[in-house]
Amino acid sequence: MARTIGSNGARTAKAIRQAGVQLIYRHGYEAMSLRQLASEVGLQSGSLYKYFENKQSLLFDIVRDHMEDLISKAEAAMDGVDGPLPRLKAFVDFHLRYHMTRKAHVFIANMEIRSLDAPHRAVAIEMRRRYEQMLEDALRLGAAEGAFRVSEPKVSTYAIISMLTGICMWYRPDGRLTQDELVAIYTDLVVGGVASPERGAAKPAELSAPAEAPPTAPSVRSRRVRA
Amino acid sequence: MARTIGSNGARTAKAIRQAGVQLIYRHGYEAMSLRQLASEVGLQSGSLYKYFENKQSLLFDIVRDHMEDLISKAEAAMDGVDGPLPRLKAFVDFHLRYHMTRKAHVFIANMEIRSLDAPHRAVAIEMRRRYEQMLEDALRLGAAEGAFRVSEPKVSTYAIISMLTGICMWYRPDGRLTQDELVAIYTDLVVGGVASPERGAAKPAELSAPAEAPPTAPSVRSRRVRA
Repeated sequence: MARTIGSNGARTAKAIRQAGVQLIYRHGYEAMSLRQLASEVGLQSGSLYKYFENKQSLLFDIVRDHMEDLISKAEAAMDGVDGPLPRLKAFVDFHLRYHMTRKAHVFIANMEIRSLDAPHRAVAIEMRRRYEQMLEDALRLGAAEGAFRVSEPKVSTYAIISMLTGICMWYRPDGRLTQDELVAIYTDLVVGGVASPERGAAKPAELSAPAEAPPTAPSVRSRRVRA
Repeated sequence: MARTIGSNGARTAKAIRQAGVQLIYRHGYEAMSLRQLASEVGLQSGSLYKYFENKQSLLFDIVRDHMEDLISKAEAAMDGVDGPLPRLKAFVDFHLRYHMTRKAHVFIANMEIRSLDAPHRAVAIEMRRRYEQMLEDALRLGAAEGAFRVSEPKVSTYAIISMLTGICMWYRPDGRLTQDELVAIYTDLVVGGVASPERGAAKPAELSAPAEAPPTAPSVRSRRVRA
């Protein structure tokens, strides 16, 4: 589907990246042809190079932009949230809502790391590490305070992030359960999974209590939790 | 790396599938060239068609064989295990150990579903559903008996399987933690996440107790659990 783009170079660059995301998601990075990409945005193949150096730098731009957006929005969501349990809940809430609707970006950021050359891959992996550290720090803090029974915070971090990210594989906006309901279900799973048993039993209701609403995306955060 | 293969057709077909797995994992299905595949197993491109109909059927064979192996081994691991908590633990144990060392197959079975044509994709999705049902049934049974607080067994099934499968993204056989230790950590996360709070608090030690050793792969199942 060729579309007409404005003369604004930034808009064109953005359209190229968006088309690139969809093509890589559907066909894989190596199989994406630049001719196809150019056609999607109504350009000649040769004109693409005004907007990015080569195919590799386009992939890196996509991955880096995704990770930068993820990290900055996560930091905003966690800002001012104190204590390990509220921070854990804020992270779960943020990560789920962010990933529910970004299947293509998530696919590329996770699966086409293989296609980045070594220097770009190192940058992407370091960004992912920074992001994961936000959850790991909350788990470490909770373990140190005795609120969480987490003996290996890094392993638990990987496990929890995999669990949450998987939602983008099946979530549909028109599905039976609302975003709020899904966030409540996953929050129960995660908090139950790491909370010290005596605390979990003493305050079972707290397992389902939502974190303070992060400052981003207020429209979808009118959370009333089922449980 | 070209290798010499025997005259046995089954061995050649197996070598082609194995080489196909590695090429698809590294480059993606669409980008995999049949010339490259033939070269990997020491054949001319034209000879590949003695062993499989076309590239699509090779992908489907890889996905189907993987899913059949997964399901039959899971059934063996769960055979004779009674009660929701033991069955949940047996599933977690099986799924983790199976996936730890099968990164390429898992990648393809999850990520190249996009590249299967519709009839093949339907078969693959139905096989995945059968596999997931084994976990979902354990969760439903536990919820019915009051052992688990699982209000949406299907959602919890997706969440748990994503969490467990993610281990293949980072597990290394020479890593600091043993398979047994990792299984214990994930089992704590999963069981804590679904167990009714009062039970979790009453018998915290049970959270870490291993399931009965499934009958498969005894060599890696000499489990002594950390906790």
